[in-house]
Amino acid sequence: MAVRYELYYWPMIQGRGEFVRLAFEASGAPYVDVARLPESRGGGVAAIQSVLGGALGGPLPFAPPVLRAGRVVVAQTAAILHHVGPALGLVPRGDAGRLAVHQHQLTIMDLVAEAHETHHPIAVGLYYEDQKREAKRRAERFVADRIPKFLRYFESALDGRRALVGSALSYADLSVFQVLEGLDYAFPRAMKRRRRSIPGLLALRDRVRAQRGIAAYLASDRRIPFNEMGIFRHYPELDTG
Amino acid sequence: MAVRYELYYWPMIQGRGEFVRLAFEASGAPYVDVARLPESRGGGVAAIQSVLGGALGGPLPFAPPVLRAGRVVVAQTAAILHHVGPALGLVPRGDAGRLAVHQHQLTIMDLVAEAHETHHPIAVGLYYEDQKREAKRRAERFVADRIPKFLRYFESALDGRRALVGSALSYADLSVFQVLEGLDYAFPRAMKRRRRSIPGLLALRDRVRAQRGIAAYLASDRRIPFNEMGIFRHYPELDTG
Repeated sequence: MAVRYELYYWPMIQGRGEFVRLAFEASGAPYVDVARLPESRGGGVAAIQSVLGGALGGPLPFAPPVLRAGRVVVAQTAAILHHVGPALGLVPRGDAGRLAVHQHQLTIMDLVAEAHETHHPIAVGLYYEDQKREAKRRAERFVADRIPKFLRYFESALDGRRALVGSALSYADLSVFQVLEGLDYAFPRAMKRRRRSIPGLLALRDRVRAQRGIAAYLASDRRIPFNEMGIFRHYPELDTG
Repeated sequence: MAVRYELYYWPMIQGRGEFVRLAFEASGAPYVDVARLPESRGGGVAAIQSVLGGALGGPLPFAPPVLRAGRVVVAQTAAILHHVGPALGLVPRGDAGRLAVHQHQLTIMDLVAEAHETHHPIAVGLYYEDQKREAKRRAERFVADRIPKFLRYFESALDGRRALVGSALSYADLSVFQVLEGLDYAFPRAMKRRRRSIPGLLALRDRVRAQRGIAAYLASDRRIPFNEMGIFRHYPELDTG
């Protein structure tokens, strides 16, 4: 019998949960995005609060996303993807390839954290408006130094191949797609200037976008649009491209 | 034949590499801390630069630490620990326990990143002196909100047991020890005020400190002292306890 997958993540944003959603959508494996169900069916933010309190058992989660995969409960985006990668067919066969994909995912998560810091450089618990001056300064360095460094790195890691590891798409390739989409949304001017330097990554993005499950997902209303509550936010004053 | 382990990490700081060093020291498995060898023997920062250029093969690393473990080359602290955990006897038997330890390690790495942000809230490429005003503001929130949140979380995850997962020490327990040491060094006033709220974590710290390999390591000159080049820095103006 197939494993039953339940994702617990904020229902109004892509956020870190989107990397998990993309993996399921690409593979076609059924999953329940629990917090997007109505509260009357056990959904809503209340479901997440309950999971953060330990309602599912397993190691206590610090934050969403949390995945229940049959009898396994696991939090932390990269750990979730590492766990489900083989069952979803999103890692190469063999431990070495699986580990390489995981390494890339962790670097992507570092980039994601830095992207979030551009609008919250002082505290996640304060509004953007209350750290706007610092955000401006941080975003300037992110655009000038960090975006180029991360893009150069992933372009080199890809090295002209069709996927980061092996020849088939892995979840790390889906995640590269997602961060390119996010950076384009948040920093369109800055990213436009970098396009010519990342031909391999742009080709990979197109390949992911055309993947059957992903194409169907992006055309559906399951794909939440980027917005200013998530990780990648478009504040024109921060896009100092 | 035993696997040969080579760690590539900055030779002058504990940093993220220290989590890997602690794992080897606790297990007693021999490893070479390559960059701490003299340049005449292939060490020094030059060795790291070469590895970041891809000299070892394997998936390209974005940053140190990088581990060569026989024929496997892997970067990203948490991925390194996940890979060596079973061979070093630092995870429970079975996939579920190994995954739980990994989840905790990833949350610890999130805390480590936030600790670094307290003195570099604008850019890793700028000096502390050039982001001191923002650092003061960020550290205030870190001390008031984030340290308590992370400590409460790990105290709950430990839940009065002798280890985070299972009954024997895992690498996540060693990492909890390391972040408690680091936070005590960087924020002694703030941490002193929190002591009474984390009896389980303090007992775990004592247990790690007394572990045979760790005790020998801490007494040796292999343990680099905390300093103001690393992640945990003691700037009294940031310790707003």
